[in-house]
Amino acid sequence: MSSHQDSFSTEPFVVHGRTYCPPAQPLAVICIDGCADEYLSESLLAGCMPQLEAIIRDGYRGLVRGALPSFTNVNNSAIVTGVTPAVTGISGNFFLEPESGEEVMMNSSRFLRCETLLGAASQHGRKVAMVTAKEKLRDILSSGLAGIAFSAEKADQAVVETHGIENVPTLVGQPVPEIYSADASLFVLQAGVALVQQALADFLYLSLTDYMQHKYAPHEQPSLDFYAGMDREIGRLRDLGCVLGITADHGMNAKNSDDGSPQVIYLETILREEFGDGIKVICPITDPYVVHHGALGSLVMIHLDDLGRLPEISQWLWNLPGVSEVYDRQRAARKLELPEDRIGDLTVLAGRNWVLGRTTQYHDLTNLQTGLRSHGGRYEEMVPMVLSRPLSTRYRQLAEGDPRNFDIFDFTCNGSDE
Amino acid sequence: MSSHQDSFSTEPFVVHGRTYCPPAQPLAVICIDGCADEYLSESLLAGCMPQLEAIIRDGYRGLVRGALPSFTNVNNSAIVTGVTPAVTGISGNFFLEPESGEEVMMNSSRFLRCETLLGAASQHGRKVAMVTAKEKLRDILSSGLAGIAFSAEKADQAVVETHGIENVPTLVGQPVPEIYSADASLFVLQAGVALVQQALADFLYLSLTDYMQHKYAPHEQPSLDFYAGMDREIGRLRDLGCVLGITADHGMNAKNSDDGSPQVIYLETILREEFGDGIKVICPITDPYVVHHGALGSLVMIHLDDLGRLPEISQWLWNLPGVSEVYDRQRAARKLELPEDRIGDLTVLAGRNWVLGRTTQYHDLTNLQTGLRSHGGRYEEMVPMVLSRPLSTRYRQLAEGDPRNFDIFDFTCNGSDE
Repeated sequence: MSSHQDSFSTEPFVVHGRTYCPPAQPLAVICIDGCADEYLSESLLAGCMPQLEAIIRDGYRGLVRGALPSFTNVNNSAIVTGVTPAVTGISGNFFLEPESGEEVMMNSSRFLRCETLLGAASQHGRKVAMVTAKEKLRDILSSGLAGIAFSAEKADQAVVETHGIENVPTLVGQPVPEIYSADASLFVLQAGVALVQQALADFLYLSLTDYMQHKYAPHEQPSLDFYAGMDREIGRLRDLGCVLGITADHGMNAKNSDDGSPQVIYLETILREEFGDGIKVICPITDPYVVHHGALGSLVMIHLDDLGRLPEISQWLWNLPGVSEVYDRQRAARKLELPEDRIGDLTVLAGRNWVLGRTTQYHDLTNLQTGLRSHGGRYEEMVPMVLSRPLSTRYRQLAEGDPRNFDIFDFTCNGSDE
Repeated sequence: MSSHQDSFSTEPFVVHGRTYCPPAQPLAVICIDGCADEYLSESLLAGCMPQLEAIIRDGYRGLVRGALPSFTNVNNSAIVTGVTPAVTGISGNFFLEPESGEEVMMNSSRFLRCETLLGAASQHGRKVAMVTAKEKLRDILSSGLAGIAFSAEKADQAVVETHGIENVPTLVGQPVPEIYSADASLFVLQAGVALVQQALADFLYLSLTDYMQHKYAPHEQPSLDFYAGMDREIGRLRDLGCVLGITADHGMNAKNSDDGSPQVIYLETILREEFGDGIKVICPITDPYVVHHGALGSLVMIHLDDLGRLPEISQWLWNLPGVSEVYDRQRAARKLELPEDRIGDLTVLAGRNWVLGRTTQYHDLTNLQTGLRSHGGRYEEMVPMVLSRPLSTRYRQLAEGDPRNFDIFDFTCNGSDE
């Protein structure tokens, strides 16, 4: 069955004050995890992305500002809701839960504080599918969704009752991929193609994994091959008539000193040396998949037993080489658009090629001997936005203000006069 | 006379602790003023830069971090010296001189606190030429230079005694360009071609003007035409055997609100309303050429008569929407690498699409009715670096740390094994 025989609901729906007018075509938004703009530039130049090149020629390519911290859960949650982390409540992959005092993964939909636009679309006549590479994201992103939702990682465990689909590997024609692989992302795109092809979905969110970007710089051959693989699937989605919106959750930078080794500040260790006990550093990049980054990112939260010491600790941190920004709870909430109750007493950001860790014991650098690539800070905030349709005058104007990556559904649904 | 018949001094020279080993070829470093990476991406994709495309394929393209404030004089001074503004002493185009209490242009070489590598190259057997679009930069950048130095703006006024050359328009084969034009930049590149062609120079710094980038977004046809024009000259330099290094002094962003009009905070006005007199706002983007940006940029300096009020003013500024960072003198000097005696009591940065002004009377927005594009803040800090030769293993490693735009001569001279 071809999607051409189907009709698509164009019923507008409103989420968090924005009206979305879906097109009379399938629509797919792709979040290329960790896709700094340089990955597109290098891959386009190398001739690895002819489909994307054609899409950009007909449509739009520009930069959008992501949410901080520039981590996966934070930005995926913002993208599927269209609002900032202050509203979603998702401030990291991992946090110190104030109610329990426990350090927990922020993986559950119980942490999400607002409605998703995927849910709203599914309630307004669209056949919604949400496919992620990593299982960790599925629960949050499928919150309120009456449709299909599964991860590549656990594709074989999807059942109709809970996932809206089953026999996914057969549908996709691929085995369940290894999570630390290019295939984990390619499977998500292939699943998107299969879902559209078989008219099982017409409003898709496809969220990849950044394993490859953590591992390879944009010019390296495995990265170029990976982007070529993505390009083939993106071309297939376009050929199936999809309106496409492509962005990233965050960028990616090398985090090495001049000798090529990871440039890490073990912040809990040095703060305890300087100020004694009662200081806890939380690394919000922490998730169940740390092989490729050792839970080292460019933003951490600090919790203090004694808030009276905050001014001197803040002052000391500002003077620390490698630290670029230090905010108390209120200022971080205001300036970084974060939920005040789900961040540290201090939020600390690092420079372009620095990461902040907890203690040496806490981080496993075994797999990082050829250097570290990571994200989380200000220098991974800007990411690409690609749209398959040309922008209307109005959206061109918005694109020349301060567009955000979590405006991607707005731009993809509403951004064109076509 | 062709440059092929010449020999080129490969004598190493040391400036500020770095050794430069110039190649046995002509070398040209080009600073494309205001060249955000998106300008290259759009122009490459549109097929307007085939020469640059070939250069990148054979060489390197990546991102480097500029100096803050992301203004022209600051970064050009850093580039020709290889050191930060803390060392050069050039902290803006315009500042409040502490010795005199006067607001002055920072255009004179008397403000430059250190040796330039152009000067050093000229003392070690290279035929150095420094060509700028704007006259304002000539004096600073030619400090200590025994060679050729002139501006496109006053090309017809160059005389051997003071500029090392005369009859420039005849040499270039072009009339003196209008300063508010694409030609002002193209003339600089054409002059570079003529100087190499006639073996008058073999170590060049060519610094353009950002009039076009202030006026046009990357996708607009006049910008694409401008970049195509630059590409032709860049190709000619390469065909003449030049080793090329290309970077920018700063990026460029639209600074408009959602309705497309310039998004300005008149900081002196609102601070005086809130805190009374004794507050002076200095806009370091101010230079003799303000038609295209109205002296509005994303970073300003604040001088206070009464330093006792600094904490409350700082706190108030942090809470102001559109303001992204606020630093006192010491912290700005440390974190932004600035000369402590040539900045304000407070240094204030704005968000991606905001600019900071003084008072409404101070700025002329007449020419900005279709919107404002400008720079000066954090979101114009990252700029491209393109090199015509492939990087050595060592410099590839450095490029994957935190390379700076003022490392461009180092990368161009030393960055390749070829």
